[in-house]
Amino acid sequence: MASNERLGVAIVGLGGAVATTAVAGMELLRRGRVDTRGLPLADVKGLGLVEYDALTFGGWDLFDEDLAKAARNHAVLTEAQLAAVTPTLERMRPWAAASNPRFCKNIVDTTAKKARSLREQVQAIREDLTRFKKDEKLDRVVVVNLASTEKSVDLTRPQFATPESFEKALDANDADIGPAMLYAYAAIVDGVPFANFTPSVAADVPALLALARRTGAPVAGKDGKTGQTLLKTVLAPALRDRALHVDGWYSTNILGNRDGEALNDPASKQNKLDTKGAALDSILGYKVQDHIVQIQYYRPRGDNKEAWDNIDVTGFLGQPMQLKLNFLCKDSILAAPLVVELARTLDLARRRGEGGVIDALGCFFKAPMSRDGQPVEHAMAEQQRNLMTWLSKGRVPRTEPAPERIRG
Amino acid sequence: MASNERLGVAIVGLGGAVATTAVAGMELLRRGRVDTRGLPLADVKGLGLVEYDALTFGGWDLFDEDLAKAARNHAVLTEAQLAAVTPTLERMRPWAAASNPRFCKNIVDTTAKKARSLREQVQAIREDLTRFKKDEKLDRVVVVNLASTEKSVDLTRPQFATPESFEKALDANDADIGPAMLYAYAAIVDGVPFANFTPSVAADVPALLALARRTGAPVAGKDGKTGQTLLKTVLAPALRDRALHVDGWYSTNILGNRDGEALNDPASKQNKLDTKGAALDSILGYKVQDHIVQIQYYRPRGDNKEAWDNIDVTGFLGQPMQLKLNFLCKDSILAAPLVVELARTLDLARRRGEGGVIDALGCFFKAPMSRDGQPVEHAMAEQQRNLMTWLSKGRVPRTEPAPERIRG
Amino acid sequence: MASNERLGVAIVGLGGAVATTAVAGMELLRRGRVDTRGLPLADVKGLGLVEYDALTFGGWDLFDEDLAKAARNHAVLTEAQLAAVTPTLERMRPWAAASNPRFCKNIVDTTAKKARSLREQVQAIREDLTRFKKDEKLDRVVVVNLASTEKSVDLTRPQFATPESFEKALDANDADIGPAMLYAYAAIVDGVPFANFTPSVAADVPALLALARRTGAPVAGKDGKTGQTLLKTVLAPALRDRALHVDGWYSTNILGNRDGEALNDPASKQNKLDTKGAALDSILGYKVQDHIVQIQYYRPRGDNKEAWDNIDVTGFLGQPMQLKLNFLCKDSILAAPLVVELARTLDLARRRGEGGVIDALGCFFKAPMSRDGQPVEHAMAEQQRNLMTWLSKGRVPRTEPAPERIRG
Amino acid sequence: MASNERLGVAIVGLGGAVATTAVAGMELLRRGRVDTRGLPLADVKGLGLVEYDALTFGGWDLFDEDLAKAARNHAVLTEAQLAAVTPTLERMRPWAAASNPRFCKNIVDTTAKKARSLREQVQAIREDLTRFKKDEKLDRVVVVNLASTEKSVDLTRPQFATPESFEKALDANDADIGPAMLYAYAAIVDGVPFANFTPSVAADVPALLALARRTGAPVAGKDGKTGQTLLKTVLAPALRDRALHVDGWYSTNILGNRDGEALNDPASKQNKLDTKGAALDSILGYKVQDHIVQIQYYRPRGDNKEAWDNIDVTGFLGQPMQLKLNFLCKDSILAAPLVVELARTLDLARRRGEGGVIDALGCFFKAPMSRDGQPVEHAMAEQQRNLMTWLSKGRVPRTEPAPERIRG
Repeated sequence: MASNERLGVAIVGLGGAVATTAVAGMELLRRGRVDTRGLPLADVKGLGLVEYDALTFGGWDLFDEDLAKAARNHAVLTEAQLAAVTPTLERMRPWAAASNPRFCKNIVDTTAKKARSLREQVQAIREDLTRFKKDEKLDRVVVVNLASTEKSVDLTRPQFATPESFEKALDANDADIGPAMLYAYAAIVDGVPFANFTPSVAADVPALLALARRTGAPVAGKDGKTGQTLLKTVLAPALRDRALHVDGWYSTNILGNRDGEALNDPASKQNKLDTKGAALDSILGYKVQDHIVQIQYYRPRGDNKEAWDNIDVTGFLGQPMQLKLNFLCKDSILAAPLVVELARTLDLARRRGEGGVIDALGCFFKAPMSRDGQPVEHAMAEQQRNLMTWLSKGRVPRTEPAPERIRG
Repeated sequence: MASNERLGVAIVGLGGAVATTAVAGMELLRRGRVDTRGLPLADVKGLGLVEYDALTFGGWDLFDEDLAKAARNHAVLTEAQLAAVTPTLERMRPWAAASNPRFCKNIVDTTAKKARSLREQVQAIREDLTRFKKDEKLDRVVVVNLASTEKSVDLTRPQFATPESFEKALDANDADIGPAMLYAYAAIVDGVPFANFTPSVAADVPALLALARRTGAPVAGKDGKTGQTLLKTVLAPALRDRALHVDGWYSTNILGNRDGEALNDPASKQNKLDTKGAALDSILGYKVQDHIVQIQYYRPRGDNKEAWDNIDVTGFLGQPMQLKLNFLCKDSILAAPLVVELARTLDLARRRGEGGVIDALGCFFKAPMSRDGQPVEHAMAEQQRNLMTWLSKGRVPRTEPAPERIRG
Repeated sequence: MASNERLGVAIVGLGGAVATTAVAGMELLRRGRVDTRGLPLADVKGLGLVEYDALTFGGWDLFDEDLAKAARNHAVLTEAQLAAVTPTLERMRPWAAASNPRFCKNIVDTTAKKARSLREQVQAIREDLTRFKKDEKLDRVVVVNLASTEKSVDLTRPQFATPESFEKALDANDADIGPAMLYAYAAIVDGVPFANFTPSVAADVPALLALARRTGAPVAGKDGKTGQTLLKTVLAPALRDRALHVDGWYSTNILGNRDGEALNDPASKQNKLDTKGAALDSILGYKVQDHIVQIQYYRPRGDNKEAWDNIDVTGFLGQPMQLKLNFLCKDSILAAPLVVELARTLDLARRRGEGGVIDALGCFFKAPMSRDGQPVEHAMAEQQRNLMTWLSKGRVPRTEPAPERIRG
Repeated sequence: MASNERLGVAIVGLGGAVATTAVAGMELLRRGRVDTRGLPLADVKGLGLVEYDALTFGGWDLFDEDLAKAARNHAVLTEAQLAAVTPTLERMRPWAAASNPRFCKNIVDTTAKKARSLREQVQAIREDLTRFKKDEKLDRVVVVNLASTEKSVDLTRPQFATPESFEKALDANDADIGPAMLYAYAAIVDGVPFANFTPSVAADVPALLALARRTGAPVAGKDGKTGQTLLKTVLAPALRDRALHVDGWYSTNILGNRDGEALNDPASKQNKLDTKGAALDSILGYKVQDHIVQIQYYRPRGDNKEAWDNIDVTGFLGQPMQLKLNFLCKDSILAAPLVVELARTLDLARRRGEGGVIDALGCFFKAPMSRDGQPVEHAMAEQQRNLMTWLSKGRVPRTEPAPERIRG
C-alpha cells in the first residue's frame, strides 16, 4: 500500500463525544502528544492496514457547532489535550444531518435535512461523500454510524426483504425507514464500507445485506462493545469452561453523557438492552434465568461511565458463589479507538475485494452481524483469534470449527 | 474403555478441605444427590476418560482422623450433605504421611513417618500405593498432592540435576529434599501419574522430569488455578487485546482455612506468591510496575475465600480507568472438581502412552509446567482450547502457533 | 414490672419471612440455642421493658399455612434452627386476614375476610385480639403491621381528616381505606399500641393520629429501617459534618423474597421509593440532584438482600471523590429483632401513659412519624440518642435542640 | 473579633501535599475561584473563629523548593487551579527544618538543621516563629505538624515524665527526642497552640502536656481522621446500636504519595497502624478478633488514595452478613480543610483562655488526645456534637455523660 494514500472517515454524529475523541486523538497522535495506547491494532504491521495518519475525518451532526466547541462540552480530553487540538477542531464543522424525531426522541435537531423526501436525503448524503472525497483529495471513504440510538423496527416487514422492495419503500417515503438505514443505504449503494457502532437498525436489514453483497460494500456492526458487555464476553466463557452455572447476572450502568440522555427514551433504551442481552446466553449455551441489565442516566459522571455487575453462580455440590465487577471507565476513551480500527479494517476488506458482512470484526460489537446466517461468536478470546486470523489470511471458509466443547 | 475399570486416586493431604470435598462430592454424585455442576469435563463423552463412579479415593495425612470428622471441621458441605456421606467417610482414614517441619512450619504433625530415612519414607509410600491397589481391586492409580504449601528450594543445586544425582541425595538424606518431592519420586519411579495442586516443589525438579520421561509417568502442575489467578488469566488477555495498559494490579485475598493458616509461615507464603506472580506479565508481554498480591489469614470466613482486585489501566489518550473485582468464592468447591478432572485426564494420558509433562492440562494451574522448555501459555481461553484439542486428538506437535498478535 | 406479665404481639402478615423469623428467634432464645445478638435493646436493663420471654405471638395472614411450613419456604433459618422450632411452629396458624386486591396486587389471597364490609372486617380484627388475649392469658397486646406493601393513597382527602369522618367512611365502605388502615383503626380504637413496619398507609392518617391521642394508643412507624436506608442515615450526617457535597447517590437493591415480588407491582414500589427518598435531603439540608433508588426482584438471593450504593461527592477545591457500599444482608435477620423491640417499647409507652406518635422510636423507621408536626430526625446517631434518652427519662419536651450546626 | 486580625499558621512539612493544598486552597478561596465546600466549619458564624482570609501560611520543610514547584509535583490541584496560584506560591519557600534520620528513614533531607544540638534546633524554631510573626505583621501564630510519620518511642521513659526532666533531656541531646517533639516543645513553651496531624509522637508526652497546662498553650492531636478511619468511626456506632457483632474488619489501603513512601519504613508504618487500631474496639466495647489494617504503597494513584473495607458481622440468630466499603478519595483534599479548621479552632481556644488538650477537637483525629486521663470518644457523631457544643459554649465540665447505652 502506498504510504501517501488517504482514507476518509465520514461519521454520522461527528459532534458526539466518541467522534470528537477519535478526531482529536488522531490529531494528538500525529503531533506525538500521545502514544498508540488503547488502539487495539497499533502493533499489527505489514498486513495492509492504512497508517493512522492516513485518516481524514468528516461527517454529519444534528448540532451545528464546530468540533472544538463540541469537544469542550463533552469534557473527555484533558485541559492540555483540548488546548493542543483546538485550532484544528475549530476549523471542522459537521454537515447537515438526516434525522427523524419518530426514531430518536430526546435529541432536538438543529441542522437536519428536514423538509426533504427520503430520496432527497439519500441523495444529499451521497453528495456529501463525493464532495468530501474531492475536497480532501481522498483515495477512499468509509462511513461509521455513531448517532444516538434510534427506536427499533420490525425487520420482517416486506419492504425490508430485497433491495428492490427497499428502494420502492424509499420512493414512497416509508415511515419505517429511519435515518441510520438511509446512511447505510447511501454508503452501500456506492460500494462504500459501512460500520454501525450503535444499536440502531442500519445495515442489518435483509435488503441492505443483499445490496452489500451485490455492490461489494463491506459492512460491520452492531453496537460497539466497550465496557460491561466486553467484560461479560470475557468472563462468561471462563464460567462455562469451569462448569459454574450462572443463576443470575445483574448489570447496572450509570452514565451521564448525551448517550445516556438519549436512552431516557424507553424505545431507544429497549433497543440498547436487546443488543446487550443476547451474548450471555449464547456463550453459556442456556438461558440465564435472572439476567437483568439496567441503564441509568446519572449526571455526576459526565462521560465517565460506571458499571456494577453482580454474578451469582453455583458450582460443585450446588454451592453458591458470587462475583462482582465494578468498572469505572470512560465511554469515549474506550469507543474512539475501536471506531478508528473499524475504519482501517473495513477499508482493508474492500481492497481485498471482500463485500457483505465482515464477521471477523465481531470482537468490536455487542451484537455482531453474521455472514450467511452462520451462528455468531460472542466469546471475546475467540473473536480476537478470528480477527487475527483474518488479518493475516483474509476471509477463510469455516471448515473446521473451534474444538471448544466436545459432546458425544 | 471397559466400564468396570477402577481408578484409584491417592491424595497427599487426604484430610484437607479440598480432598474431603472431592471424596464427599463423588459419593454424593454416585447417590444422585448432586449433579455434575462444577465438573469442567462432565459433558466430554466418548474420548476415553474414566467415568466419575470409577474413582476410588485413598491417601495420606498428618492428622489421623477419619474423613467424616475432618469434613465436619472444614464445614464446606451443607449439614444435609454431610449427614448423607458421614457413614461412608467415617470408614475412611488417611495413611501415615511423610512430613518435614523444616518445609512446612505451621502444621503440627501427628501421624508422620518421622523417625525414618528418606529412602524408608519413599518405600513406605510405594507400599501404600501397592496395598491400595490390591485392597481396592484397582486397575490403575494416580497421585495428587494437596498438602499444605512447603517452603521453596533452590532447583539449580546439583542434586536436582539428574535422576542419578537425585537418588544419591535420597540415599544421603539430603536436607533439601522435601516431602512433596518424595511423593512425586515414589509415584514417578513406578510410572504412576502425579499431579501437584500446590505451590510446593514436587515433580518440577529437572531430575524428576527426566525420570518421568524415562518411566512414562505423566505429570502435571503446579498450584491449582481456582479463584483470583483464574480471573487474572481471563481478564488480562482482554486488556491486552484492547491495548489497555496495566499500570497496577492490586490483589488482596482473605481466607480462613487450614491453607491460610499454613501461609502465615512467610516461607510458604513466598512460594505461593511466586506461583501467583508470573501469569500476568507473561500474558501482557511487559512487566506490570505495581503488581501486588496479598494473602491474609482471616478467620471469619473459614473456607469461604474472598478476593478483591483493583486494576489501574490507561487507555486511549493516556487516560486512566479502573476495574475492580470482588470474588466471594469457596476454595474447596472450586478446587475439588479440578482435582477429580486431573485424575481422569492424567489417567487418560498414561493409557495413551504419553509420559512427562502433559502441558495440555495448563488450564488447571497457576504456574503450568512446560514440556521441553517451551513457553508456557497462561491465557485461560487458549489453555481451554489446548485442553479440548488434546482431549480430542492427543498430544500434537506445536507446529502452528496461535495467531494471537502479529508483529512485522 | 412483675416478671410473670405476658405481652401478646399480634402481627399482620404472620406467615411472612420477618414474622416467622421473629417468632422462631424468640423460641430459640428461650431454649438457649441463640444469644441476644442482633437485638438492639438486649442490654438495656431496669427501665421497664418486658423480658423477651414474656412475648407471645399470634396474627393474621392471607396464606393459611402453619408457621413451620412458612418458615421452611422462607429459608431464613439454618437447617438446625428450623428443626429445633418446627414442633412449636407447626402448632401456630395465622388468623384469616383482611385484604384488598386493589391495594396490593401481586399477592394472591387464600384466607381473606373477603365478602365482608369494612365494619365487619374491623369487628373481626377486634374479636381476634380479644380472643388472643383471653386464650393466651395475656396482660396486654400490641399490633405490628408486616404485611406486603400496599399502594399509596391521597391523605388530604376529607374522609381522612377526623376520627368522625373516617368512621363515616368506614360505614360507607370507602374505596380508599386499605387493609393496613383497618388494622390500625381496630387497634387504636381500643387503645392498643400499633406499629407500622411497612411503607403502607396505616396509622399515618390525620384521623387515626387524632384518635390515638384520644384513646392513648401509642403508635410508631413507618417502614422498618434495616439495610440501605440505615446506612444512608449513618453516612449522610458524616458527609454533612465534613462539608462534602453529595452530587449524586445511586442506590440499587436486589432481593428475591416475597417482599421483592410484591414490589414488582409499580404502585407498591412507588410507595416504597417514597419512604426511602426523604431521609437523605433532610439530613443534608439540600436536595441531592441525582438521588436514584432502584429495587429489583432477583431470585437467586431469596431472602438475602444486596444493596450497592455509589455516592459522588465533591470536597475541597471542588474536587470529586467516590464512595461505594456493598451490603450483603439478610432482610429478615435485620428486621425481626426490630419488630421485637418495637413491641417491647410501645408496650412500655402505654404503661407510662404516653399515647399518639412515640417519636423516640424513629431509629427503627425509614420514614419516622412525627409528633405534632415537629420536624423529623433522620440521622441515625441522633435517633439512637433520642431513644436512649426516652428509655431512661420518658418523653421529654423538646426545649433544647441538638447543637448540630450553628448558623449566624 | 476585629476583622483585621491576622493569624499565622506555621506548618511543619510546608512543602507536602496537604500543606500546599491548604495554602493554595485558601488563596483560591480568597480570589473567589472556589467556594467553601469541604471546609467543615464554613457555616459556623458569630462564635469567634477568625475568617479564612485572616490566615497567613509559613513553615518548615526538608526539601528546599518553592511551593509552586512542590504543588506541581503533588498533582493535587487541577491544571487551572495550579496556574491561578502559581505566582503566589512561587514566592513561598519553606524554612530549614529540624530532622532526624533515626526517626523517619525514607525521606532524605536537604535543608535540615542538621549539625546542631537539640537546644539549638528548638531555639531556631522559636526564632522562626518570632520572625514569621513580625515579618507578616501577625497577631497570633499556631503550629501544625504535617511532617512524615516518625518512628514510635517509649513514653514511659523517665525523661518524658515532667517538663523539668524533658528539658534536662533536651540539654543532654537525648536520642529519644524526635523532631516532632522539638516543634511541639518550641510552640508550647511560648504558649503557642500546637496541632499534631500525624501519628508521630509530639505533644502527647506527659512532660509536654503538663507544660501546655502551665503555659496555657492549647494542643490537639493526633493523626488526622480523613478517610478509612473516619468511615470506621461513622459505621461502628451504628453496628453497635443495632447489636450486630463485628467478627472481622479487614481494611486495606492503596496510596501513592510521599506519605505512602514514608510508610514503607516498617517503624513509621507501625506507628500509623497503632493510631488506626484503637477506635474500633473503643466504640464497640469489645475486642474485634480479626481487625486487620493494611497500607500499601501503590504508585498508579499518586495522591488519590483508595480504601477497601470488608466487615463481617453476625446478627440475629447468629447469622452472618457482610458490608464492604470502597472509598476513592483524595488524601490532601480531605486533609487540607481540617488543617485550616484546626488552626482556627485552636486559636479560638487560646483567646478563650483554654490551655492543654482541647478534647472537643477529637472529631479531627484518628487517635484523639484526652484531657486529664478521661476516656476518649471515637464515635464521629458524638465527636461532632462535642465540637458544636464547645464552639457555642466553650469548654464545659463533663457532668452528664451521653446516654448512649444504659446498663443495669
